Amino acid sequence: MQSAISKLTGRSILGYADGEARGQSFRAVNPSTGKEMEPQFYSASVGEINQAAVLAERAFAVWSRASGKTKAALLRKIAEKIESLGDDLVTRATEETALTPARIKSEAARTCFQLRLFAQIVEEGSWVNARIDQADPSRTPLPKPDMRSFHRALGPVAVFCASNFPLAFSVAGGDTASALAAGNPVVVKAHGAHPGTAEMVGQVVREAARECHAPEGVFSLLFDAGVDVGVSLVKHPLIKAVGFTGSLQGGRALMDVAAARPEPIPVFAEMGSINPVFILPGAIRERSAEIAKGTHASVTLAAGQFCTKPGIVITAADPANVAQSREFAASLRELMRAGGDFTLLTSRIHDAYCSGTKSRASQPGVSELAQPAIAPGSVGLRVAPVLFETTASEFTRDPQLHAEIFGPSTMLVSYSSREELLQLARSLEGHLTATIHGTEQDLHEYADLVAILESKVGRLIFNGFPTGLEVCHATVHGGPYPATSDGRSTSVGSQAIYRFARLVCFQNFPNASLPDELKNENPLRIWRLIDGEQTREAVASKTRATSL
Amino acid sequence: MQSAISKLTGRSILGYADGEARGQSFRAVNPSTGKEMEPQFYSASVGEINQAAVLAERAFAVWSRASGKTKAALLRKIAEKIESLGDDLVTRATEETALTPARIKSEAARTCFQLRLFAQIVEEGSWVNARIDQADPSRTPLPKPDMRSFHRALGPVAVFCASNFPLAFSVAGGDTASALAAGNPVVVKAHGAHPGTAEMVGQVVREAARECHAPEGVFSLLFDAGVDVGVSLVKHPLIKAVGFTGSLQGGRALMDVAAARPEPIPVFAEMGSINPVFILPGAIRERSAEIAKGTHASVTLAAGQFCTKPGIVITAADPANVAQSREFAASLRELMRAGGDFTLLTSRIHDAYCSGTKSRASQPGVSELAQPAIAPGSVGLRVAPVLFETTASEFTRDPQLHAEIFGPSTMLVSYSSREELLQLARSLEGHLTATIHGTEQDLHEYADLVAILESKVGRLIFNGFPTGLEVCHATVHGGPYPATSDGRSTSVGSQAIYRFARLVCFQNFPNASLPDELKNENPLRIWRLIDGEQTREAVASKTRATSL
Repeated sequence: MQSAISKLTGRSILGYADGEARGQSFRAVNPSTGKEMEPQFYSASVGEINQAAVLAERAFAVWSRASGKTKAALLRKIAEKIESLGDDLVTRATEETALTPARIKSEAARTCFQLRLFAQIVEEGSWVNARIDQADPSRTPLPKPDMRSFHRALGPVAVFCASNFPLAFSVAGGDTASALAAGNPVVVKAHGAHPGTAEMVGQVVREAARECHAPEGVFSLLFDAGVDVGVSLVKHPLIKAVGFTGSLQGGRALMDVAAARPEPIPVFAEMGSINPVFILPGAIRERSAEIAKGTHASVTLAAGQFCTKPGIVITAADPANVAQSREFAASLRELMRAGGDFTLLTSRIHDAYCSGTKSRASQPGVSELAQPAIAPGSVGLRVAPVLFETTASEFTRDPQLHAEIFGPSTMLVSYSSREELLQLARSLEGHLTATIHGTEQDLHEYADLVAILESKVGRLIFNGFPTGLEVCHATVHGGPYPATSDGRSTSVGSQAIYRFARLVCFQNFPNASLPDELKNENPLRIWRLIDGEQTREAVASKTRATSL
Repeated sequence: MQSAISKLTGRSILGYADGEARGQSFRAVNPSTGKEMEPQFYSASVGEINQAAVLAERAFAVWSRASGKTKAALLRKIAEKIESLGDDLVTRATEETALTPARIKSEAARTCFQLRLFAQIVEEGSWVNARIDQADPSRTPLPKPDMRSFHRALGPVAVFCASNFPLAFSVAGGDTASALAAGNPVVVKAHGAHPGTAEMVGQVVREAARECHAPEGVFSLLFDAGVDVGVSLVKHPLIKAVGFTGSLQGGRALMDVAAARPEPIPVFAEMGSINPVFILPGAIRERSAEIAKGTHASVTLAAGQFCTKPGIVITAADPANVAQSREFAASLRELMRAGGDFTLLTSRIHDAYCSGTKSRASQPGVSELAQPAIAPGSVGLRVAPVLFETTASEFTRDPQLHAEIFGPSTMLVSYSSREELLQLARSLEGHLTATIHGTEQDLHEYADLVAILESKVGRLIFNGFPTGLEVCHATVHGGPYPATSDGRSTSVGSQAIYRFARLVCFQNFPNASLPDELKNENPLRIWRLIDGEQTREAVASKTRATSL
């Protein structure tokens, strides 16, 4: 059997058809060797972008009304086919990203888990938040109408692949899974750093769509040598929402493009975060070495290329705690020195890391605690981990120190009074996470710190680390701007389905003409809010007295 | 006792303080007489806008964590105090708007009903959508953390009063009620057309806040002689979201201002809608006269100044139905002619109505069926109702015919084939509502029409009229752009609370440090999603096996 790698064509996927092999082209580069890889990939043309959008719009009419069972079947089929790619996928993704095979395998598993989570959710069906307020014809002065509402799909969604998650935030990643689950066709813009991985996944998504008899256009995949295809896609009038994971600069640019459209559309961009880790006095006294080890692992996981990598680690330097803080710093420094060097994903990320760490090292009030030399003779995008140190007052004063450095670097920040600590917390912009290490007593004593952090981030972690996000119903992977474009949403976990759904209400419709979710007899047996009460029961009578 | 009208000061309300009586000033104008009213009102200064925002930000720390009971008490107190304004409020609002006392009374009742609906919702507490995924320390390869999330307030919200609803979409209207209920302080920008009504309501909201010991700054009210105060408010860095009801031009301007901020914020703007009414063959055969009467009432209710006023009425003109359609048109024309003339809210609305109807009358393919003369000797902002007629092909072809004319005017649109009807539906932009009059058989036969309309509007009405919106749990008052800025949301009904809330997740927090909504024992007895299952039960054990 021909391997999935040798079948790569370099062409966009336009519904069930292929794009053309012409126009602007590019190749993937192996970050470990700096060498270009086969095949050549071709940017989608303006006509192809339009074709994908038109097909998606046509597919919307069918897919937005597909049953939960039908949608679940596609999501599961995609997961199954990604699994069947096996080692081919691991090989290609590893070569394109320099991430380890173990990481790619676990990311593939997560991707399939996410697809099946959304399958489960749409099959069960209660996610639509069906609400029924029954009629009361005898109400005065006016009769009360029958009102029923639920969530419906939004329209064709543009999904941008992320550089740092070639699977879980890419072609069949979280945004695609949640958009398809809600009933939206998806047009994916591949990331230039891992187009081969994108095409392999894209091919199996297309196969899955065909086998499940999904409407053509429910999925397309566009390649882009630069940024033009992405921008054109966001500007396309048939696209109704955007999912993006990447840099603040890139995300904000798309937000601005979307907001300036004749018809503005929502952009869900996850952009950047420094994920502050607060180590409170009780914790540093009890578990200094253990926390240093955990911090090092979290900072250097996947070469520090997680959106949830801790970018600052805050410890107390008042007389009562300064000794422990110094010991913690020494442990972390040793770990950073001993931990070796790393290969980054792309030359853009590599250059930004080198210039970012260099410029931070020259900031007044910042010192460099560790920057081991890169192994001699290294090739590719190798970098050393860097550990910085500064004070809370410097950090609070200097907005440049709040900038994310993407890669294996972090900064220790020491505070000398409680007020300095709270000021630091108040000075934070929006981030994805904040972490607190402490005893339960600490948590109680620093309730004011927790309250401040709660207004700054989407997820608060106690005695853990922000990397390694659990995908479940309660997951929130979001946070106020500039962590994301819309801090009310999450890109991970089952609640992500709501970003691509809208409310629709039916007034006085006959039962037979209502969608199944809203019919009296509740044929799907879903949870519904009937006259303000949660229930899975059928509606007993259309004229039952209401509770309001 | 001094009347609330004679106590009007013309000053902004800044937390528990008053703004200054200086700077740019203006007066309300009685639309029925054209006469200016006492007192003079003063635009908030830049310093006063800042003061309101800073007070709101301070209040946020307390109010966002206030219990449902505490928030409900304030909402109910506001309702009670609005009721106690009694005839003073009716008198002033009537004089400022030319709406009838009956309308003002029913709008006051609706406003208080809304406040109490949100009181009930936050007191009950389940609106926060608490979700708990329990830990599984024995899971391999990694232990599963404990994850708990819910909805929290967003931050200070700017609310813009609407010209056409001096109470229900103004100072203590839907946006204010839902924002306060979710835990957000509110800074209201009064509408220049009814500042006296705004101050009367604002004064009692402040009194209510004081009596309920709410934090100062939970409510402020700013006057504005033009648009500068509103724009400055939306630009203020401490403001985190905006609620607006008004014109497309005004709403889009605020959307653009908000999107261009260093930190973009969500704007929930409800802007315009032509609320198409489709009269299918079965209905026009059975109930032509009755539907004409209902249409006339809906078009002219409150002088046609509802966001849900039917702007086009679509009937069949094929040989089988043309006679009924003509009869319907004749009935509607008679009613429009006999129904008298109307006073509009503001000179801006009056001028836009006059120029809009004039320019439509001169459009090729449009004829004017009825425009009775205005009663001789009329003063103030009097206008005649106008009935236009055109064909579906003209309407589909000409985007100008899709524009809303705010006021007592509508347009009959006749189609001569099913394909013309569907093309017309497909050509529609986003609107708040679509209405279908038909038999159940019609609804079945025109399922494709319903499917198209479902993707165009927030609410579909069967055999009713779009005006007179029911405020309940299932209400959706929204729709795709340009009806609103964000078609995923609603400005009316209990789901409006989610526009001003965001998701926050707690990972591995000790039970004692969790918000009550997320504690194991479920002290508030709210509905929660525990490991994917809806329940009001407590969490049995922190390590119970999970269902996923």
